[in-house]
Amino acid sequence: MRYGTQFGPDITFLGVDRCDWQDPASYLDADVVLLGAPFDGGTSHRAGARFGPQYIRQTCYLPHDGSRPSLALRADGLRDLRVYDAGDVELFSGDAARSVRDLQAAVYTVTSNGAMPLVLGGDHTITWPDAAGVAQHVGQGRVSMIHFDAHADTGNVEFGSLIGHGQPMRRLIESGAVRGDRFLQVGLRGYWPEPETLDWMAGQRMRSYEMTEIGERGLKECLTEAFGIAMDDCDGVFLSVDIDVCDPGHAPGTGTPEPGGLSARQLLDAVRRIGYELPVLGMDVVEVSPPYDHAEITSFLANRVVLEALSAIARRRRDERDGTRWDPRQPLLDGR
Amino acid sequence: MRYGTQFGPDITFLGVDRCDWQDPASYLDADVVLLGAPFDGGTSHRAGARFGPQYIRQTCYLPHDGSRPSLALRADGLRDLRVYDAGDVELFSGDAARSVRDLQAAVYTVTSNGAMPLVLGGDHTITWPDAAGVAQHVGQGRVSMIHFDAHADTGNVEFGSLIGHGQPMRRLIESGAVRGDRFLQVGLRGYWPEPETLDWMAGQRMRSYEMTEIGERGLKECLTEAFGIAMDDCDGVFLSVDIDVCDPGHAPGTGTPEPGGLSARQLLDAVRRIGYELPVLGMDVVEVSPPYDHAEITSFLANRVVLEALSAIARRRRDERDGTRWDPRQPLLDGR
Amino acid sequence: MRYGTQFGPDITFLGVDRCDWQDPASYLDADVVLLGAPFDGGTSHRAGARFGPQYIRQTCYLPHDGSRPSLALRADGLRDLRVYDAGDVELFSGDAARSVRDLQAAVYTVTSNGAMPLVLGGDHTITWPDAAGVAQHVGQGRVSMIHFDAHADTGNVEFGSLIGHGQPMRRLIESGAVRGDRFLQVGLRGYWPEPETLDWMAGQRMRSYEMTEIGERGLKECLTEAFGIAMDDCDGVFLSVDIDVCDPGHAPGTGTPEPGGLSARQLLDAVRRIGYELPVLGMDVVEVSPPYDHAEITSFLANRVVLEALSAIARRRRDERDGTRWDPRQPLLDGR
Amino acid sequence: MRYGTQFGPDITFLGVDRCDWQDPASYLDADVVLLGAPFDGGTSHRAGARFGPQYIRQTCYLPHDGSRPSLALRADGLRDLRVYDAGDVELFSGDAARSVRDLQAAVYTVTSNGAMPLVLGGDHTITWPDAAGVAQHVGQGRVSMIHFDAHADTGNVEFGSLIGHGQPMRRLIESGAVRGDRFLQVGLRGYWPEPETLDWMAGQRMRSYEMTEIGERGLKECLTEAFGIAMDDCDGVFLSVDIDVCDPGHAPGTGTPEPGGLSARQLLDAVRRIGYELPVLGMDVVEVSPPYDHAEITSFLANRVVLEALSAIARRRRDERDGTRWDPRQPLLDGR
Amino acid sequence: MRYGTQFGPDITFLGVDRCDWQDPASYLDADVVLLGAPFDGGTSHRAGARFGPQYIRQTCYLPHDGSRPSLALRADGLRDLRVYDAGDVELFSGDAARSVRDLQAAVYTVTSNGAMPLVLGGDHTITWPDAAGVAQHVGQGRVSMIHFDAHADTGNVEFGSLIGHGQPMRRLIESGAVRGDRFLQVGLRGYWPEPETLDWMAGQRMRSYEMTEIGERGLKECLTEAFGIAMDDCDGVFLSVDIDVCDPGHAPGTGTPEPGGLSARQLLDAVRRIGYELPVLGMDVVEVSPPYDHAEITSFLANRVVLEALSAIARRRRDERDGTRWDPRQPLLDGR
Amino acid sequence: MRYGTQFGPDITFLGVDRCDWQDPASYLDADVVLLGAPFDGGTSHRAGARFGPQYIRQTCYLPHDGSRPSLALRADGLRDLRVYDAGDVELFSGDAARSVRDLQAAVYTVTSNGAMPLVLGGDHTITWPDAAGVAQHVGQGRVSMIHFDAHADTGNVEFGSLIGHGQPMRRLIESGAVRGDRFLQVGLRGYWPEPETLDWMAGQRMRSYEMTEIGERGLKECLTEAFGIAMDDCDGVFLSVDIDVCDPGHAPGTGTPEPGGLSARQLLDAVRRIGYELPVLGMDVVEVSPPYDHAEITSFLANRVVLEALSAIARRRRDERDGTRWDPRQPLLDGR
Repeated sequence: MRYGTQFGPDITFLGVDRCDWQDPASYLDADVVLLGAPFDGGTSHRAGARFGPQYIRQTCYLPHDGSRPSLALRADGLRDLRVYDAGDVELFSGDAARSVRDLQAAVYTVTSNGAMPLVLGGDHTITWPDAAGVAQHVGQGRVSMIHFDAHADTGNVEFGSLIGHGQPMRRLIESGAVRGDRFLQVGLRGYWPEPETLDWMAGQRMRSYEMTEIGERGLKECLTEAFGIAMDDCDGVFLSVDIDVCDPGHAPGTGTPEPGGLSARQLLDAVRRIGYELPVLGMDVVEVSPPYDHAEITSFLANRVVLEALSAIARRRRDERDGTRWDPRQPLLDGR
Repeated sequence: MRYGTQFGPDITFLGVDRCDWQDPASYLDADVVLLGAPFDGGTSHRAGARFGPQYIRQTCYLPHDGSRPSLALRADGLRDLRVYDAGDVELFSGDAARSVRDLQAAVYTVTSNGAMPLVLGGDHTITWPDAAGVAQHVGQGRVSMIHFDAHADTGNVEFGSLIGHGQPMRRLIESGAVRGDRFLQVGLRGYWPEPETLDWMAGQRMRSYEMTEIGERGLKECLTEAFGIAMDDCDGVFLSVDIDVCDPGHAPGTGTPEPGGLSARQLLDAVRRIGYELPVLGMDVVEVSPPYDHAEITSFLANRVVLEALSAIARRRRDERDGTRWDPRQPLLDGR
Repeated sequence: MRYGTQFGPDITFLGVDRCDWQDPASYLDADVVLLGAPFDGGTSHRAGARFGPQYIRQTCYLPHDGSRPSLALRADGLRDLRVYDAGDVELFSGDAARSVRDLQAAVYTVTSNGAMPLVLGGDHTITWPDAAGVAQHVGQGRVSMIHFDAHADTGNVEFGSLIGHGQPMRRLIESGAVRGDRFLQVGLRGYWPEPETLDWMAGQRMRSYEMTEIGERGLKECLTEAFGIAMDDCDGVFLSVDIDVCDPGHAPGTGTPEPGGLSARQLLDAVRRIGYELPVLGMDVVEVSPPYDHAEITSFLANRVVLEALSAIARRRRDERDGTRWDPRQPLLDGR
Repeated sequence: MRYGTQFGPDITFLGVDRCDWQDPASYLDADVVLLGAPFDGGTSHRAGARFGPQYIRQTCYLPHDGSRPSLALRADGLRDLRVYDAGDVELFSGDAARSVRDLQAAVYTVTSNGAMPLVLGGDHTITWPDAAGVAQHVGQGRVSMIHFDAHADTGNVEFGSLIGHGQPMRRLIESGAVRGDRFLQVGLRGYWPEPETLDWMAGQRMRSYEMTEIGERGLKECLTEAFGIAMDDCDGVFLSVDIDVCDPGHAPGTGTPEPGGLSARQLLDAVRRIGYELPVLGMDVVEVSPPYDHAEITSFLANRVVLEALSAIARRRRDERDGTRWDPRQPLLDGR
Repeated sequence: MRYGTQFGPDITFLGVDRCDWQDPASYLDADVVLLGAPFDGGTSHRAGARFGPQYIRQTCYLPHDGSRPSLALRADGLRDLRVYDAGDVELFSGDAARSVRDLQAAVYTVTSNGAMPLVLGGDHTITWPDAAGVAQHVGQGRVSMIHFDAHADTGNVEFGSLIGHGQPMRRLIESGAVRGDRFLQVGLRGYWPEPETLDWMAGQRMRSYEMTEIGERGLKECLTEAFGIAMDDCDGVFLSVDIDVCDPGHAPGTGTPEPGGLSARQLLDAVRRIGYELPVLGMDVVEVSPPYDHAEITSFLANRVVLEALSAIARRRRDERDGTRWDPRQPLLDGR
Repeated sequence: MRYGTQFGPDITFLGVDRCDWQDPASYLDADVVLLGAPFDGGTSHRAGARFGPQYIRQTCYLPHDGSRPSLALRADGLRDLRVYDAGDVELFSGDAARSVRDLQAAVYTVTSNGAMPLVLGGDHTITWPDAAGVAQHVGQGRVSMIHFDAHADTGNVEFGSLIGHGQPMRRLIESGAVRGDRFLQVGLRGYWPEPETLDWMAGQRMRSYEMTEIGERGLKECLTEAFGIAMDDCDGVFLSVDIDVCDPGHAPGTGTPEPGGLSARQLLDAVRRIGYELPVLGMDVVEVSPPYDHAEITSFLANRVVLEALSAIARRRRDERDGTRWDPRQPLLDGR
């Protein structure tokens, strides 16, 4: 039986239909299945991301009617695609090991039943099971990673644990789920990790775009380069968006804010390009921490990151079908 | 008798002189008359904008002495122009129809007595009576609209009502007060309105600059193009600034925040250009919602939007008189 | 068709079952039907109460499973009674007159179909249609009023309107729905209304317990006296709880906080007594304003006010059936 | 010329008339003159009390019309008395010595011109000049002190300074302005000052009611005892209310909150008794720190403390004139 | 080597000396050793209590000098006793099982080396290892429990786990560490746990004082009764204070606030009595959640709960030594 | 003896070692000595900056271990340099004159003993003693000033005082400590100071980059130009960063926020360039006001401004030693 949501009332993302991930019949026709991962037991500092799924689902001022027609893309990610919300996977923040295992099972089940999993975190711990669950279906090393974050999340052990929000990328590479040389990181900055870990990353041939390089070269150029790498001998990408990739001014409600990040506009544009230009096999949005989110602006942003991706995927499908192409310079009212 | 302010102590915008809009003798020499519109009964989500007038008037750290010399423009919008604050128009948020009627009467009275009305909202419902009041004096279709907003506000009926903060632009065009093809919208984004309404807008030949187009072409170029349209066979512009045109990071204290907007710097520069380059016949600043505005940064911004417009208008008049021209590249201390 | 909720996702009070107030078949067996009244267009100061229904429904840390066994009363108000949530009545805050009319229709429909209406406000404007809707069924003057509030709410006209959150009690008495001499007010204090209105109240033979009298005589004694009056030649009571009857320390999230009120404990005990000792024909909980409610403590309190009433009514029914009587001095674990 | 207010717009307490303390002609008929003391340079921890005068003046949801009829007392402190607001005394928080000197001059001037000074703080530093200014007129040792506070404020030197918010009571006693054995302190608790200072206090024969004694004996009895001491060979009392005498739950917006204090209800009742039973020669309300005051509940309380005192003084005068006596047990609507 | 603190700078409780719990030589002379338990992985709703140790240690406006002379008790809990702060035990919130094990080891070590452990939580999960660690030294069933809380915390399994903040009391009783019939609970209320668990509790012969009984009988009488039970055939008590025993108005910064609780004053008085009247063998203060604690009033309260206990213990020792007895009715300045 | 910190626990900046500025032996090998200046008595509006030192020191989510390896620069400002934290200089906010004198003594002592002083404010008043203390050692007029700020801070007298946060730059120039024509200001905007003061500034040949010029020419070009002026016949620069140079969206927690400023990214890049390209002789970071800083994003930014400067200085030294040069376009993982 469907679990529902772990905290608060049983709602779905902006009112889309419910399904039960354990019952594939309930989402046979799905393009996308949303899963909530209300887990913050892996955080090294501020908790609160357990309420991320609830707030990402509900933080919108429009009617919760399962429809969101994008102005920019003229596509409705919730209607043009078949999107279900499976509710939360029950994850006890006090048991990271069990949580990781259970979440991977859910993601794998969704993926192997033909839907793209879109996981609402939760802290970044969950990207290990998220991407691993996808790789479990499409094949080890067959999915590349595009990872927006202030932090590399390639630590080895924190607080005596291999599992945590600073270590998922290491676990993914070590396990072979994602190839190190198909691991693209965008937005890194600050003072972590230390040189030893950077050396390990270099050894894995990861490609990490720190904010300085992005500032000098421009985000567009960096992304184009990254897309090329991502699609070299891989079947598609997993998109992991840590909301702290944005500057704390744009995303204060997060656990480990690092000044000097992207603007919200930059993040939305980047996500849109990924959805439109690349085959996305899975996605997560993580590290939204509502207790630190005055006026809920971070939750609003995370909600829009989800919509931006879905809208772009919907538009991509339509353009592929129709042989058309979206023009970002077209005036709004000339569009269709 | 002057009504004063509807909420809180009877203050004026940064200490400018009082007048009574019903008594034209009290503002015979006025260039600008400020009117407060403490109404939020038209909001579709968060209320609070009823306190906008109070906060826009008072949120400044400098002495409330009726003087604000602009560094950038070397003009004092409150001294070089003759600016009065007529206090609030009494608007009961529980009666939108009466509020709209009473506000239009006030705006028309001010305009027809030779002053530019500058209305401090309040929710965006008020732009219907604001611009209609101006058109009532200058002639239907003779004032164009420059409208900064995340939202098109061209809905037809919401909650069973023709009046509301999502519908004023439709009412203005339908009534003939403003021509659809002289309606310039800047900063739109997100997931509203739905295609049917966009079709209506296109049918009216509105020109809406969505953030994607602005990002691709640059705000400067878009504005220059818009200014050309606005001044084609019109006598001047009405400037309506919905503070949510800015990104929620820069303007969190608003009712329907939509991520991915302008920066505060962009908005201020744009407002300055409009005041300096175009004949402004009326203006409003709306959707500041103080209860959601930690550290009052949105109120600070709205206060500066008003000042930026007034400073630019003052500088425009001086330069017109003196045959000079303001140079934005000039070093501050070389200026005058 | 059921309207759902006006703001946010379509949730029910702590997960109880849904019904549609316009379809009596959907709540034939109901003891209680909850109605949301998301209206704050009648407020004279801070708005925000439109989100009261959403927050009162959801602000609880326990699973939203439609069950709440009271420790103190050993009764489950949501299970022992048959409770449905009809969602919100669509109320446009910009049209108080229509809102009042539509809400009364809903309350009357629920009442006349045999269920007790329990309305989640919303500002206090709604008590006019709430109690009038009940009286419409049980007969004018047949329901007495027990009204917890810092304010008498007996104003005549505010902002040019007969409708508003300061006037509902006057409208109820004037209309004959509730007799003035069966109007019991508890918790009044502060500096409103002015003497003329107090004279009107005295003329109606209302009985108002100001906090000073309560402090001197004790709340228990005052309530006992009030209960006697309420049940003299009436069929039952309408219980209206304005959350601002509590001290702002206990209920900061409200529109017109008045220091010096009841503690949360006092309010809960009083509501319990009413539910247990009197036949309650209708109830509302009003003036919860979430934007001013840090850590949501006011919403928590309002949620518990609802539960306390339902638990007590459930226990009353059981004790009436079993011929037993609840003893507040009994140790918890001796209870049943 | 009248200085106005130091921060923000030039408002008066709830709209009462303006006067200029330096121009006695402007308040010849005054019963009470309000003075703002926007100083927080004497705080040992959190600042912010400089905005106390602004917030105490304006934090009320009723019209700012210079009238507040008390329900409990059936007297209007702002109308039955002649109350003026002289605005702020300019006090630079970076110069405590000058500030103390200038404030005392203002208080003395007001007192010697026949009005009761009521000073809105500001941190507790100001009670030195407040009470000293009164004593300067009525005579050293002729005014007793009733001091509500969590803290004794009898320190000697803090941060190398004799002036500060922890030392005013010592300065008053040392200077002879107030007799140590006519110094009544109510509400003390916590962990300051240290024994040496307590010994000094005992040596001065001060009478300090710690919360434990108040809890055991009851506030009423303690106050009655204190009133007797206060009026023994003195001409009247100075009432100093540090808002932190209340529990942080009731007054969070203060600089040095100490848990375990009075409820707001208790404070209001106590202030009322003082205004009604004793001749009050001067008063101040201090330590309201708006930046820490979510939903402004502390400012609301401080505003009501002022009103409670004024209402009680007004009622006292009427009863003295009429030979009547106020009965706190009288039902509200039986009153006059 | 001493671990220090897990989050933020390495501070000690109000500046007391450091020790290392793993090195008994570092606290040979200790009366009390403080341990931080920065764990919130056991919470069922809001997290944040991991920052409890940091905030309880530092939230005070007085100098952090390792001294706090109590006004009421005339004893300095930090100086008259020998108090050390061992810093935090490293507890990974994502691994509750390991955390519980490691914390018990620390508590046992401290206890067996002759010091009273005082644990700063963290969520209530920690009371299992806290009290079990004490019992490990003094003997199973030899320490009784006095437990202040809104919740019984006697659940069996939550989120599939035997460990969590709703289950510690069951684990303690089942393990034999604490006898069910020496388990005293004070302040329970609300809607949890369900009847089956209450039956289990009754079967264990626990004694739980729900707020209704406390309200009817008075807290003093209830405590006196409880103390008698606690000391019947036990060697001393473990005092566990869940800050949510207080009303949310007094303690908003907590994870599962339940309206209708004790006032801060009541809690402080109760803790004082326990420290003064009973032999306390161990103590914890839990469930302070700083992200929900505007103006930090809950942290202030928790800091004072610690100090109140230590002050009372210090006074008890002195009075035992001197053959004196503390009188709560004695005026402050008559004390010593 | 080392004073420690004035407010809260005695911590150091991210855990670096302690020293005592009065004891040069304690920092003989220092490259940098941090000094806290917890003073906000000079503010003209919001206070709170007294807690700046505490929050700048501690607001970081990483372990406080005295190490911060910069990703961008591949240098560890806290390890590659020898950095000590001398704690706070005791500054009583109620005595600006004494505070200024004492702080200058501390800065001079540190400078003359061979370390670069880095002062954590506090309000901007402190830049007078900060830069004057440096000039006292290196010679009057030998240190140029690079000053990031929204405000020129060249006022003459405010609130009757020559000392205050709006006047330090005037005092520095008047005293000859810094030459007016070597005074570079970046980020000015808004409506202060008035023309007379601008004229004074022009007369001193100051160079002030208002945001309009920065917007038109680009920050990079402006900085390059400014660097040239700064190093013309001076020995090095003093870097003063008022956090309000950033837009309030990026730095809300400040006393006088002025919309339209730099982004956090721009400020960090600028500070990095200064540290890397110029000899920095002293630095301060001012005007962080924690009470207005929801989610502490302003404190996070200020902490990073300090680290950015130290990292760049460390890298500059290494490159100077090694004859290498840092390339901002180099991919992160190619770096060293």
